[in-house]
Formats: sequence, C-alpha cells, structure tokens
Amino acid sequence: MAVAGSGKKETIHIDQAYGRRLAENVIAKHPVPPFDRSPYDGFAIRAKDSKTASRDHPVTFRIAGEIAAGDVFTGEVKEQEAVRIMTGAQIPDECDAVVMFELTAEHSDEKNKYMTIKRPFTEGDNVSFAGEDTKEGRVLVEKGESINPGVMALLATFGYSTVEVAEKPVIGVFATGSELLDVHEKLEPGKIRNSNAHMILAQIERAGAEPLYLGKLPDQFDLCLSAIQKALGKVDMLITTGGVSVGDYDLLPDIYKEIGANVLFNKVAMRPGSVTTVAETNGKILFGLSGNPSACYVGFELFVRPVVLHRSFAKEPHLKKVTARLMGDFLKPNPFTRFVRSAIEIKDGCLEVDPSGFNKSNAVAVLAYTDVLMVLPGGTRNFKKGDMVDVLLLDSDKGSEWPWE
Amino acid sequence: MAVAGSGKKETIHIDQAYGRRLAENVIAKHPVPPFDRSPYDGFAIRAKDSKTASRDHPVTFRIAGEIAAGDVFTGEVKEQEAVRIMTGAQIPDECDAVVMFELTAEHSDEKNKYMTIKRPFTEGDNVSFAGEDTKEGRVLVEKGESINPGVMALLATFGYSTVEVAEKPVIGVFATGSELLDVHEKLEPGKIRNSNAHMILAQIERAGAEPLYLGKLPDQFDLCLSAIQKALGKVDMLITTGGVSVGDYDLLPDIYKEIGANVLFNKVAMRPGSVTTVAETNGKILFGLSGNPSACYVGFELFVRPVVLHRSFAKEPHLKKVTARLMGDFLKPNPFTRFVRSAIEIKDGCLEVDPSGFNKSNAVAVLAYTDVLMVLPGGTRNFKKGDMVDVLLLDSDKGSEWPWE
Repeated sequence: MAVAGSGKKETIHIDQAYGRRLAENVIAKHPVPPFDRSPYDGFAIRAKDSKTASRDHPVTFRIAGEIAAGDVFTGEVKEQEAVRIMTGAQIPDECDAVVMFELTAEHSDEKNKYMTIKRPFTEGDNVSFAGEDTKEGRVLVEKGESINPGVMALLATFGYSTVEVAEKPVIGVFATGSELLDVHEKLEPGKIRNSNAHMILAQIERAGAEPLYLGKLPDQFDLCLSAIQKALGKVDMLITTGGVSVGDYDLLPDIYKEIGANVLFNKVAMRPGSVTTVAETNGKILFGLSGNPSACYVGFELFVRPVVLHRSFAKEPHLKKVTARLMGDFLKPNPFTRFVRSAIEIKDGCLEVDPSGFNKSNAVAVLAYTDVLMVLPGGTRNFKKGDMVDVLLLDSDKGSEWPWE
Repeated sequence: MAVAGSGKKETIHIDQAYGRRLAENVIAKHPVPPFDRSPYDGFAIRAKDSKTASRDHPVTFRIAGEIAAGDVFTGEVKEQEAVRIMTGAQIPDECDAVVMFELTAEHSDEKNKYMTIKRPFTEGDNVSFAGEDTKEGRVLVEKGESINPGVMALLATFGYSTVEVAEKPVIGVFATGSELLDVHEKLEPGKIRNSNAHMILAQIERAGAEPLYLGKLPDQFDLCLSAIQKALGKVDMLITTGGVSVGDYDLLPDIYKEIGANVLFNKVAMRPGSVTTVAETNGKILFGLSGNPSACYVGFELFVRPVVLHRSFAKEPHLKKVTARLMGDFLKPNPFTRFVRSAIEIKDGCLEVDPSGFNKSNAVAVLAYTDVLMVLPGGTRNFKKGDMVDVLLLDSDKGSEWPWE
C-alpha cells in the first residue's frame, strides 16, 4: 500500500460529520452518566429509611423538595425525607435509591407533603451510577471508522463540536472514446451515451471520496495528453475509462509514457477488468479502467476504492469478504479469477447469492441489482447450486484486509 | 399508512441523483446494445467467407477499411473482404462475425492490406447483438427504488439528463429538556450535552430526508408552544425528543392538545421507546420521541423512517427484517416487544447477532456499533445462544412491508 499514499486530516464542525471517516479516536471525556442519575420519575430516598416498609407497615417520608432534570438539589436530605426527582436528574448526595411514582401514595398536611411506600428498597435500586455506561478515558470508536448516527451521539455527548476527519480525496474522471455521446444528446448510429462516467461518479461518492467530472476525451493523442496533464493539478487521483486495451485508438499507454508515469501494472488476471492499468506520478495515482461498463464497475471497486479507504484511515480498506450459498449453477470455466456482479438475499439467516442476469461484461441492467461481487477463483469451473462461494459486499461500511486469495 | 401522507416529486439533474429515490420508472428507451457491435478489437467478416479456412488452407481477406468506435462504415463489405473494427463499434451490415486480432496474420502488397485466418467462423461469432442486454421499452428499475451507481449508469445510457425523484421531506428537530447543554458548552452539575439531536439529524439523513435542527426547548409551556407552532410552518414532520413521559415537566401532551393535534397513539407496548407519541395536524406529523438516547434511536427507526420511505415511494418502507442466530444468552423476560441494539457478523455464510454491550436504554456507546435491532416478541423470555431471532437491518436500502408480527 506504499503507493496508495497517506491520508490527510481536516477539522470540520460536528454538523458536517455524518458519513465521514474519523481521523482521531473518539474518547469518553467524562464518565457516562457523568453523575448518579435517576432513570425514572419518582422519589430519591436513603434506602435504609425504607428498611421496615411492608404492606402492613408502610413507611412515610416527608417530601423535602424536587429536582427537575438539569437542576441540582442544594439542600441536605435528612432521615425519612424524600426528594421528588425527574428522569435524568442527578440524585442528591445523601440518597441511594429511587422509588417510582407508581409505588408511592402521596398526602399532605398544612405544613408538609408526604409520600408513603409499602416495600423496602436497597442501596442502588433504580440508580444509574456515574460511569456505568462508559468510564472516562475509554476509546469508544477508533480512527478510520465511519461516523454513523450512534457515533454522532458520542461526539455530541463528549463535546466534540469539531471533529478531525479524513479529507476526502478528489478523484477526477475522464471518459475516453469518440463513440461517446453526452447524456442529453440524441442517439446517433454507432454511438452510445457515456454511462461509465455517471456510474463512476456515484461509485466515488459511495466510497467516500469527492468526484470531479472532467468531461469526455476524443481518441486524439495530443488533446488527451494536454487534458490529462492539466487535470493532474486539480486531483488526488485520476480515473480514465476506456482507452486502455490494445486497439489502434487506445492511447493511454503512450500518454502514461509521455508524462513519465510509473506503470504499476497494466494487465490483471481477472474477468472482467483485465485491461485495468494503474500508474503513479508525483504521488498522484492514475487508474485506467476499461471502457466496458461492468469491467469499469468492478475495476473501481477492486482497485480505486481500497486506495480511497486507505487514505481515509480505514484499517480494512478492501471490500468486506464473506461467504454465501450459490443459488444457481455457474458451470463455465474460470481461467482467471472471475468477479460476477450478483444480487444477494438473506434466507433463514443465511446469505444466498444469485448471479442473476448477464455475465457478459457489457451488460448494463444487471449493475442496478448488484449488491455483491461473487469471486470465482482462477482455475476453477463447474460451480453448482448449493456450493459455498466468496462474495464481496459493495454496500458495507465494514471491510477486509485483503479481498481474495 | 393514510396518515403518513403521500410523497411529492421533483425533477433534478442526473448529477444530483445518486442516493435519491426514483419517482418514475427507469425504462429502456432503446435496445442495448443499440446496434450489433463488436465486443473485441478485430476484423468484421462475412462468416460464410471463412467456411473453408483451416490450418493447412488459410483463407485470406482484403482489408477494406477500418471503423473506430463511434464511427460507422459507409462502404459495402464484399466477398472475401474484412473491416478492421474496434471494441464497441457498429458491425457493418454485410458482416456477421468478428475475428480477434490474435487469430489473424496480416500482410500487404503495393495496393492492398490483407489478413489471413486458419479456422472458420460461424454467423454471430463475437457479435454483441442489438438488444441482447435489454429490449426497448422494458422497465429496468421501478419507482421507489434508490439510485445506486448501477442505476446511474442506466439513467445515463437512456438519456435521462433529468430524473424525477422523491422530494426529501423536511424534518425539524427540537430537543426538549432544561438539563441539556449544547455540544460546545462545558459540562455542569446535573446537566448533560444534547446528544439526541445530533444523532437524530444523522438518522434523518440516513433515511433519505432533509434534517432541520430547530434548537433546544426549555421546560416552559409557553416557550415550547410558540416555538412548535412557528416550526410547523417550515417542516413536513417535526420530531421532539424528551418531554413525552409522565414527569411533572413533560409538556408535550398539553402542547399537542393546545395546537389541536390529533394524537394517533402515545404509548407503545415496546422497550425501549414505550413513551413514543405520534400526532398529526394539518397533514404534518409530530413525533414525540423519548429523551432517552436508545429509546429515541429505536423510536426514529420504527416510526419516523417508514413515513420518510413511504413518502419517497418505497414499496417496502419498513426496516428489512431477516433472521439471525443469537450468539449469547438473553434470558430476561420480555413483557413487551423488545428491540435490542445489536451488532451483526456474517460467519460461514450466516448472520450472527450479538446483543453486545448494554441493554439499558440510556447506554450511549452501544449505538455506535449497532447495525441491527434484534426483535424479541412480547411475552417471551429465556432466549439462548444458538436460537434464531428476528433482526431489523439498519443500513440496508431494502425494506419490509411490515417489520414484525
């Protein structure tokens, strides 16, 4: 992961933090609860005063005052005295139990109010003790985790009005290929609309990075070269789709050479996506993904996403790998590791994977229903319904250290 | 669901569509591929011209021209002619097969270029036929589904430069309680920081609605009443946290009465969250959630989220319910249906649920690790490790019609 570079931090307001990745640990800056508190509306008492209470011999307490949530009782609670207390309020120092309203009967005379109970309470009854949920100093959530609603609650509880999060890497996207029309253009013979760019921009967002669409590139060397050189100043990573195979008009290999990029690899023993090229220049990573929608989709998830996650301090930057039961035969041989765009269901508590739809790499519709990539290792064949297979989860915040062997 | 109201549509640019819910079906506006195209770089030929080709008797074709992707061959391909073709390009009318470059040998004389092949091809070899992925007019994704990267690709492919999506309902949030400090304030005796509001704002975002934080309300009737009346003009739904139980300072029931809201229910036989109140006034829904963080969290997911999803045209607006194997004993009785904040893992292809951490409703830390709510029906007890239980998934785009029986 050396080439993947390291992440940058930024400090943002808590209001902006949902969905970002932590660049610092979240620490309990005080115990929770911060004080002994009442979990119910009722009366705080000294438990020992209730020792003799029974149905036949009720015990009476003088009501010495009341505490709303957020208030503190400033007096002293004496023998046979009780204090009316609201849920969440701090229990007076002398008290050690809370009696719910439902278990009391109230009455009053000219001077005082009283309440009576018919059973004894012991020390600690109905008390939420300081620190019982969380001790001070404890690391509650680690750097690299993503900020969900529960983490938001912790940040607020411990006074994180600003939070250190991973800066989102900016990822530029070029679509190459003279056959591409923009989404608003009318279809013409021989041409197709540019669907990869819109798909990848969404994948960039899902991965937690910042997408920057840079437009289409025609199949002309000089135009491509200058556009790519200019773009590199504006992004942390650059994705091009198309232009990486061996066709006469695939210009990217020569462009990588021209800008002096260090090509890390340019063929991968996998299907789809074998023509993926990854190169590096001045700390910027260039991803040359296939122009083929499914290959492009898979290439993003396997190669780009882990770099985004790594730069966001995630400890397990690769797609989460689990196993699932195959729900149909998949007999064809897999000369190379195959990543099948699949849908998953949970039935009787277990994952079932359906390599639904098409397994040709130019199928578009199946991607809308893809939740996982099913991994069929190279050199295998004849997968049957009921077999257990590896799947990589696409919609999970969780990850794996390495997605496949 | 009558009271839940109906959703509104808005038309947005495709660039803004990722993560939104469709308010229209996505339809294949043309076949995919739109024309017979080459899946490889190679030569387009008339298959019948290759019939006699063999290792001993290679067949030679004159190269009649070339087609880049996006171009169309305008000439006519005659007997024993081939056209150089790039991946994705339209196959000339006369041709019906593509030979990959790797299977050809090229040579030339003064006038012409030629290529030779050593095996026959049959009609359709290496041709991606028009419509083989998707026929014209087919509904590819239904209204109410969420727009993932694969759906984005479809929208772009079929020229949806603008998309009809569900308008995000605006949900206002008040935190009530004089004990609450703002996140930037220093802790004081008896007080706690307002964590519910930040948590709920993130839950609103996760559910796909628009959060609007309206601030804290003190426990004073007149102030609360006028703030709530004013807020109703700005929101589609209004959440208050706290102020709904039977404590002396819980003002919401009286406020609901004062504004003439129709209280739909104000107690629910569940734990936590039993004090949830839902009321309706002039088509606006008021949710009075518990001030207790876990009860508040659960109340949002069970009562508010389904209304958001319903108004976003989702067919299954409730949390997705599946089953999972319990990984520890949970022996205590469940007089009311209990929703236990739990973490889930997938092991050997099956879900395992761990009611980790605390099961007291004021525990904060456990929510950071909560992926599911485990449902233990009212009237049950003694759940043991290994038992199958229902769980509701919190991070899934998918849903259920109704989450529990």
